[in-house]
Amino acid sequence: MIYLDNAATTFPKPNSVYDALDKANREFAFNTGRGSYKAAREATKIIDETRIALMKLVNAEGLGDVVFAPSITIALNQIINGIDFAAGDNVYVSPYEHNAVARPINLIKKLKNVNIIEMPVVEDTLEIDLEKLKYMFTQQPPKCVLCIHISNVTGYILPVKDIFSLAKKYDSITVLDTAQSLGLMSVEMNNLNADFIAFAGHKSLYGPFGVGGFITTGKVKLNEYIVGGTGSDSLNLNMPEGYPYKYESASPNIVAIAGLNAAIKDLDIETIYDHEKELTDYLVEKLSEIREVTMYLPPKDKHVGIVSFNIKGYRAEDVGMILDEDYDIAVRTGYHCAPFIHKWLKDEEYVGTVRVGIGRFTKKEEIDSLIRDIRDVI
Amino acid sequence: MIYLDNAATTFPKPNSVYDALDKANREFAFNTGRGSYKAAREATKIIDETRIALMKLVNAEGLGDVVFAPSITIALNQIINGIDFAAGDNVYVSPYEHNAVARPINLIKKLKNVNIIEMPVVEDTLEIDLEKLKYMFTQQPPKCVLCIHISNVTGYILPVKDIFSLAKKYDSITVLDTAQSLGLMSVEMNNLNADFIAFAGHKSLYGPFGVGGFITTGKVKLNEYIVGGTGSDSLNLNMPEGYPYKYESASPNIVAIAGLNAAIKDLDIETIYDHEKELTDYLVEKLSEIREVTMYLPPKDKHVGIVSFNIKGYRAEDVGMILDEDYDIAVRTGYHCAPFIHKWLKDEEYVGTVRVGIGRFTKKEEIDSLIRDIRDVI
Repeated sequence: MIYLDNAATTFPKPNSVYDALDKANREFAFNTGRGSYKAAREATKIIDETRIALMKLVNAEGLGDVVFAPSITIALNQIINGIDFAAGDNVYVSPYEHNAVARPINLIKKLKNVNIIEMPVVEDTLEIDLEKLKYMFTQQPPKCVLCIHISNVTGYILPVKDIFSLAKKYDSITVLDTAQSLGLMSVEMNNLNADFIAFAGHKSLYGPFGVGGFITTGKVKLNEYIVGGTGSDSLNLNMPEGYPYKYESASPNIVAIAGLNAAIKDLDIETIYDHEKELTDYLVEKLSEIREVTMYLPPKDKHVGIVSFNIKGYRAEDVGMILDEDYDIAVRTGYHCAPFIHKWLKDEEYVGTVRVGIGRFTKKEEIDSLIRDIRDVI
Repeated sequence: MIYLDNAATTFPKPNSVYDALDKANREFAFNTGRGSYKAAREATKIIDETRIALMKLVNAEGLGDVVFAPSITIALNQIINGIDFAAGDNVYVSPYEHNAVARPINLIKKLKNVNIIEMPVVEDTLEIDLEKLKYMFTQQPPKCVLCIHISNVTGYILPVKDIFSLAKKYDSITVLDTAQSLGLMSVEMNNLNADFIAFAGHKSLYGPFGVGGFITTGKVKLNEYIVGGTGSDSLNLNMPEGYPYKYESASPNIVAIAGLNAAIKDLDIETIYDHEKELTDYLVEKLSEIREVTMYLPPKDKHVGIVSFNIKGYRAEDVGMILDEDYDIAVRTGYHCAPFIHKWLKDEEYVGTVRVGIGRFTKKEEIDSLIRDIRDVI
């Protein structure tokens, strides 16, 4: 199989990740941090070490906290529901948001009657229109800005630093979704003016399922949302105060965290980025030579890793099915859990897009096969 | 190390579980159920197979639904926050509840002003006082009854069937926490009159961290609580309707589910129960011969797997530390995330209890070592 669905989950992972997971399962899958014995305390060290590794990754060692959650979706639910929203608050989202943001914020809208405002885009390139956004902020000042870093539909790298700088003039809370970016490109918490950086272990970080979370400056306190045992302060019916423990209930998934730890150690961001960017540009070049193909492309230097396209006369899912059944190529098709962007892509006649998700282990020959097979289909 | 902390998490797991986890990680850790290629569909089959295995386990195949969550804590948060509570509703909990129930329901109390009522106990045995409970129900009819099946502090097997039968006379919603029981003893959904059976993969089921959830008759519909991408119906800002998908956002943890699948296949409930009960009774017999030891014991035929005790003159955590450092025995000490029961146990002078959690792989000789070492300490 040629695996080109790395935007859904990266596969394979480095061998060191598999080895770390297997070792953790067999040797120290204890309930950490709440025990009174060496083995549990040793396991706790790996968790602490991984927190530090993540803080380093966003160039903020010692400047905030890491909260682990079972997934980035849970983390985003905790952040979005933890913010003290009031009726009428203006909440800005990019039109590239994933349902891991769009659905929680829609729930808040129903519960608290906030205004959800989509950031404007420049019509021809579908880039965020910063000038227009700046003006919109003057009219409807933001309480919170939620933004995906790299679109999981088009690979567009959003101008997060600019967006959050504008937002911070209004003391807005800023939340960044790095499911597709952390581990692939530079993500600096302070430089980007991000209060919360949500991350997914199993995507661009090349870790396993079962761990995600958020990194935070700690300046914004969140209300409790998911609560349970913490192995501490057991007689207290509220969660213990403060980051990270207030937000980490249930037994920590020490196995997944150990896998993530190994994954972070194996990252070489610059090399991975260059490789993915090279293959992305190569894929775009080759696809652009096929007359029947329509791509949904951001400007050349503003996208990486993901390419969405359609073939004239085929629904997206038909292309996916043919590539799978006849050529053993795995791509993803449809709307990709991104509810807002398709009105701009105007891909409804294809029922979404065919998405190629490139990964660090993708080979140029695999792109060549894909191109050859697409030519064969049409 | 002699591992006697199986109530926190069972360790080790059967080898088949480790093998299944490793295989899943290396071979099919795809984003299932939302793709258009064979490998993802194959992985989906394991999820469906595991749902069926769980329904069989509670003797309710074809009679309800299984919702997977990353942990039983998340599952209980979803259930408790998903129920349509109104101010003044009477919510009964057993005094044996874990913070995975106690803290979420306390949050509901703060948000919606429900009445939380603890079930009464018989003072000498600390069994649930069914007669008194029956009367309390007539005075304050239950909207919801939440009950742990086996106490994670004393191993007490609660009379769930009786409690839920009484509750059902008032059409109460019934929620069972089987973290310590599913896989160890019979849990029959209909026979117990349970609307929701919450389960933890990594405890008595001998599966891995990263998967829990609930089994439900489907009769009670829950409001959305944790929302996100489902890989389906992407343009809909609400979760898709119906069990199980409305309650399963984010990429399924196919690896953990494959591990749980292997764990369920390896269960032989009767044998495991008999083994644990035999060792429990043996431990109780041996501990009762030590004058300085106080045990917190339910009636003999009403507890299994877990024994809590204290040693005169020692705080619980000191006993744990000595057993760990001098004898390499892992037990758990403290309040065990159970906020209500300690006023009945009257263990405050010891700051909780020393808890022995027996597992299916615990050996009689390990109990002998523990007893010898305790005698050595005092």
